[in-house]
Amino acid sequence: MSEFPVLNIALIGHGFIGAVHSNAMHQVGRFFSSHFQLRPKVVCGRDHSTLQSFAARWGWQETSSDWHAIIDRQDIQAVDIAVPNHLHAPIAIAAAQAGKIVWCEKPLATTVTEAVQMADAARSVPNLVWFNYRRIPAVVLARQMIDEGRLGEIFHYRALYLNQSGIDPAKTSTWRYRRSEAGSGASGDLLSHSLEMALYLNGDIAEVCALNKTFVPNREVDDAVMLMARFTNGSVGTFEATRFGVGYRNTLSFQIHGSKGMLHFDLDEMNKLEFYDASEAPHLQGKKQIVVPGPDHPYAKNFWKPGHAIGFEHTFIATLGDFLLSLQGNTAFRPNFDDGLKVQKLLNAISRSSEKRAWESLS
Amino acid sequence: MSEFPVLNIALIGHGFIGAVHSNAMHQVGRFFSSHFQLRPKVVCGRDHSTLQSFAARWGWQETSSDWHAIIDRQDIQAVDIAVPNHLHAPIAIAAAQAGKIVWCEKPLATTVTEAVQMADAARSVPNLVWFNYRRIPAVVLARQMIDEGRLGEIFHYRALYLNQSGIDPAKTSTWRYRRSEAGSGASGDLLSHSLEMALYLNGDIAEVCALNKTFVPNREVDDAVMLMARFTNGSVGTFEATRFGVGYRNTLSFQIHGSKGMLHFDLDEMNKLEFYDASEAPHLQGKKQIVVPGPDHPYAKNFWKPGHAIGFEHTFIATLGDFLLSLQGNTAFRPNFDDGLKVQKLLNAISRSSEKRAWESLS
Amino acid sequence: MSEFPVLNIALIGHGFIGAVHSNAMHQVGRFFSSHFQLRPKVVCGRDHSTLQSFAARWGWQETSSDWHAIIDRQDIQAVDIAVPNHLHAPIAIAAAQAGKIVWCEKPLATTVTEAVQMADAARSVPNLVWFNYRRIPAVVLARQMIDEGRLGEIFHYRALYLNQSGIDPAKTSTWRYRRSEAGSGASGDLLSHSLEMALYLNGDIAEVCALNKTFVPNREVDDAVMLMARFTNGSVGTFEATRFGVGYRNTLSFQIHGSKGMLHFDLDEMNKLEFYDASEAPHLQGKKQIVVPGPDHPYAKNFWKPGHAIGFEHTFIATLGDFLLSLQGNTAFRPNFDDGLKVQKLLNAISRSSEKRAWESLS
Amino acid sequence: MSEFPVLNIALIGHGFIGAVHSNAMHQVGRFFSSHFQLRPKVVCGRDHSTLQSFAARWGWQETSSDWHAIIDRQDIQAVDIAVPNHLHAPIAIAAAQAGKIVWCEKPLATTVTEAVQMADAARSVPNLVWFNYRRIPAVVLARQMIDEGRLGEIFHYRALYLNQSGIDPAKTSTWRYRRSEAGSGASGDLLSHSLEMALYLNGDIAEVCALNKTFVPNREVDDAVMLMARFTNGSVGTFEATRFGVGYRNTLSFQIHGSKGMLHFDLDEMNKLEFYDASEAPHLQGKKQIVVPGPDHPYAKNFWKPGHAIGFEHTFIATLGDFLLSLQGNTAFRPNFDDGLKVQKLLNAISRSSEKRAWESLS
Repeated sequence: MSEFPVLNIALIGHGFIGAVHSNAMHQVGRFFSSHFQLRPKVVCGRDHSTLQSFAARWGWQETSSDWHAIIDRQDIQAVDIAVPNHLHAPIAIAAAQAGKIVWCEKPLATTVTEAVQMADAARSVPNLVWFNYRRIPAVVLARQMIDEGRLGEIFHYRALYLNQSGIDPAKTSTWRYRRSEAGSGASGDLLSHSLEMALYLNGDIAEVCALNKTFVPNREVDDAVMLMARFTNGSVGTFEATRFGVGYRNTLSFQIHGSKGMLHFDLDEMNKLEFYDASEAPHLQGKKQIVVPGPDHPYAKNFWKPGHAIGFEHTFIATLGDFLLSLQGNTAFRPNFDDGLKVQKLLNAISRSSEKRAWESLS
Repeated sequence: MSEFPVLNIALIGHGFIGAVHSNAMHQVGRFFSSHFQLRPKVVCGRDHSTLQSFAARWGWQETSSDWHAIIDRQDIQAVDIAVPNHLHAPIAIAAAQAGKIVWCEKPLATTVTEAVQMADAARSVPNLVWFNYRRIPAVVLARQMIDEGRLGEIFHYRALYLNQSGIDPAKTSTWRYRRSEAGSGASGDLLSHSLEMALYLNGDIAEVCALNKTFVPNREVDDAVMLMARFTNGSVGTFEATRFGVGYRNTLSFQIHGSKGMLHFDLDEMNKLEFYDASEAPHLQGKKQIVVPGPDHPYAKNFWKPGHAIGFEHTFIATLGDFLLSLQGNTAFRPNFDDGLKVQKLLNAISRSSEKRAWESLS
Repeated sequence: MSEFPVLNIALIGHGFIGAVHSNAMHQVGRFFSSHFQLRPKVVCGRDHSTLQSFAARWGWQETSSDWHAIIDRQDIQAVDIAVPNHLHAPIAIAAAQAGKIVWCEKPLATTVTEAVQMADAARSVPNLVWFNYRRIPAVVLARQMIDEGRLGEIFHYRALYLNQSGIDPAKTSTWRYRRSEAGSGASGDLLSHSLEMALYLNGDIAEVCALNKTFVPNREVDDAVMLMARFTNGSVGTFEATRFGVGYRNTLSFQIHGSKGMLHFDLDEMNKLEFYDASEAPHLQGKKQIVVPGPDHPYAKNFWKPGHAIGFEHTFIATLGDFLLSLQGNTAFRPNFDDGLKVQKLLNAISRSSEKRAWESLS
Repeated sequence: MSEFPVLNIALIGHGFIGAVHSNAMHQVGRFFSSHFQLRPKVVCGRDHSTLQSFAARWGWQETSSDWHAIIDRQDIQAVDIAVPNHLHAPIAIAAAQAGKIVWCEKPLATTVTEAVQMADAARSVPNLVWFNYRRIPAVVLARQMIDEGRLGEIFHYRALYLNQSGIDPAKTSTWRYRRSEAGSGASGDLLSHSLEMALYLNGDIAEVCALNKTFVPNREVDDAVMLMARFTNGSVGTFEATRFGVGYRNTLSFQIHGSKGMLHFDLDEMNKLEFYDASEAPHLQGKKQIVVPGPDHPYAKNFWKPGHAIGFEHTFIATLGDFLLSLQGNTAFRPNFDDGLKVQKLLNAISRSSEKRAWESLS
């Protein structure tokens, strides 16, 4: 099997998301036919005992407690970053400067300054940001339908991201609730997904007006963020992301109204896409639930048969699969660090807008 | 206003369904433009005090405790029967023989013998059976779409009628749970609606195989009924009606699968019809919820604007409205006593099938 | 029947909404037991022929083309205003000054100035604004559940009002799209309902930041409006109302997240209320669809039986029914002109906020 | 890694379902902590070229075209059967007699005779039938809730299995439509899943009355099957399985009504379970959608976090995971060949009932 190029991978971080990445590395070869062989070589972390069991469970050959040393290794071709946000920049920059392929969890950074440096450093190496939800088959189908003109001129974009972690003490004690490590709260954690998806589906945002809200006194980060946006295509949008969306564990949704139709997606039913075709005869118009993946749908050939549900982990597998195919074909992969930087600039404008209680331009 | 023919009406019965009929008589003229003037003249019942308050609330000019006397009155043109099932036959036959227009609650009768006599008697007068659900706009739209060939060849018909009255002591002490008055339980009360709707939508039934079930010892009537059916058009069907459908207060649904599409209706969302168009491009196929009434839908001009919900009572108004238009135009109205008789024969075959544990033919 | 006080009513306007009001006047006595007798006396309008047919269909004894003359009549006790928005103020003020009971369509006025004058004038007479959606049984149940503390501390309020009239030439040629007559577009027409409902359910709004959007060049009024809000109870909200919500004919929804639970309502399923109870055992938590009206629900005794759907028109009947009971009991009726004024002030702040691109305080 | 017992596996068959099994073998160790090491050793098939690519994609070390030879190998501990139904019996019996662990696709066999022989042969070895849907977390939760008494006395069980393969020429040309290879059509293919799940959730079936239907002339197997059933617990049930369920690609559902509540599951939303709790206060009762896996739910610790969807493949991983834990703990695994035999007897009774047009007892 040595006929195919081997990619030895180092994973920095061994939490929940590190496990999800690891799973994708093992699975990608079964669902995507690139000529690369991924080899989970070394996983890096500080807690020796959980690191050992993580490595055993997720098939990592070695463990390490020193990410600097790992980046110096010549036998590592790709570095995957799955640590708290404030560590993304130093690791990613070092890895890129060492010529490694770099994969980084979202949000790319904690500040625009960091993100600019990261994007600059990564320009010379293949890179990826794990905005996995962009690769839900139903979301890719939405993009395809927009490209085909099925919505016509876009009027409205509406995005929600709801979870209820803000009232769960087990979650509010983690690094995600500390400004120095997370950079922000609901904004970076949740809204960043919705923003990236909006850029993917509806193009650039020209200006925003936002409101950050922290419900719990002395909490360092935003519990919720709401905003209005003007897109450069003339449409208007609203976004809301909150850790106080009681009733939902992890729900991202978007809805788009155009002159010819409407699209609606909800992560709670990730194998469905809702479409309203306003060009049908009026008495036959209605919201239609397309089960995705169906025949000829995105990734229909990669995973199981039409009508057989895929889940959360497959969005990571598809991200990695497309990355490897891009690498093989020497084509551009998206979302990359430049895309991550764009989201960071939006997050920054949103934060500024909330502070200044004013509209902020992105230009 | 005397330019239009007046119909003086006598209502026999003053319970819940009598109120619903009364409401329809008051409302029909606002939504349907026949040239008839309906005048609620006299309501007949045995309990003096509730009869008085009923008459006052529902606008009846007179009250009476003697239905025979009412039928003898020359100033009464129409008799509406809203009493327990075992009284349908004597009243309807007398009224028809007296030349009155006759409207009768469903099920038409408690036996086929009664129903035959009723249908014979009523052949000379305009008549109606209150199978109101056939006139839900979404159901009429379903029929229209079937007629247009949108389902192609029909394979499956599936009907459910669920309520939970069987575990509600307030309901199990009424006449509906006594064989002598009701004739049957879930069969006559609930299944009759599903059967009538199936005949309307999918045509005649050739044979049935059924199972009646009574969960409560010593209860006189069936609590639930299930059956398989062969339709004369080659399709097969299942029906289930139960008063032990815990979770539902009053839900009737049907689903039809054909070679070109699927239709699904649920009374819980009576302003919607679900349609799957199997002739669309495979990647765009999906279940579509058509909001009814929408533009050009049945009754869209009669009631409010597209997108404005109608409710339970409007099915009775539409029944009466169509009856009056038929009367005016001298065309056949359906469902009439002959349709009621057909349902009665089905109920009888179902009951026999359950007793004999064998298929029963309808021919 | 002369033992009960008669209210002779004059209706100004004979369009769609005038018909809905007329229907409520005829029906209210059957579902609400006040001691008043409503008598639809005279309907006023300019187009003689449509006025005649309206009067005949909706049971008005007389017609008139002069609303001033009507208000001078001593035999009229109540004036119902169902004309374009710019006519609300002159008619309502005249009627109130003549001592009539005044019922006025929403939005109350086209400007705050008008609304202040109207509220002042109406302070001495019983008055009502037809914000009918507040009286959907499921909405009243929501209020009841909030009052019972079932949501705990409120975090988020989210409201949508979507229709697609903006792309329908038949609709964009009406007075609703002319500033001089309508005052505003989606704001007054749609958003006013959402605002009134928010005040009812979640209390006062302290400040707003809004964006009006007109998609069609040269259109005089706003096609869509979006806003962020801070409520005085500490919660934050988003509102969106649009005539470019392709996919929806008339859909109003709200969602409220609190520390103990979530409530969600959608006019597309007006007989349901969605509730998430976060105080249940975690493994049993889920969104629950309560069918309304059910037992012990608001208006459960007024209309039909639990499980039997009501529709659009019943919200007007309930509004009028509650008004008459308030009048009889000499208690305060809401929403009255002061409530209408409050909404008008919000609409004004929203418009100003959009123009100035800044937050506006309501104090 | 040799400290843990290795299971070398032979897979017979390399179609779609063989891929799903292979995936489960690779993944099970990441989600279930048994002490076994699964090693996909050899895959057996007839078409050399597709077999090679299958082996490469799914990580099989060797290929073979002779299943007899494989069963003779001493280095193989487990044989997995993923070939057309008529080959289950010879392979399973040979493998069991050779002392191998045996895993067999459903339905177990094509006849009761075969199934009896298989169950007899397998009694001395660990065995499993791939009725994977029993291990959907929501289905296991349903079973748990029934065991906790949350439904009370069971009245009704209702099962549907719908796909539309019968109108798809690409599917009707496969072995699944040939009697000699499949044994039956919709019955063995689809209904067997529903039956097994019913036995799991609601216990034994005492008698059935069924109707098989073949819509296409000269087709050898049943396109659809419908039946009524009496369970030994006193409840009654209906089942329907069809390849002519136009509108659905692969939908299995069940609904159970009991004296205290209702449960409903639909494979189209496999991460949800619907529950109606009839013991709540009447005005708060409603259908509740529990998102599964949630906290403390079945398999919540095995896969991803609450609120993160799993898919089709995870039901196979869970089946295999539970099997390995049973093997390790020396406890009984279900569903085993005896369970498969029970389903086969039901299928046989159903077929007989349809032929004889009569009820068939299972005793």
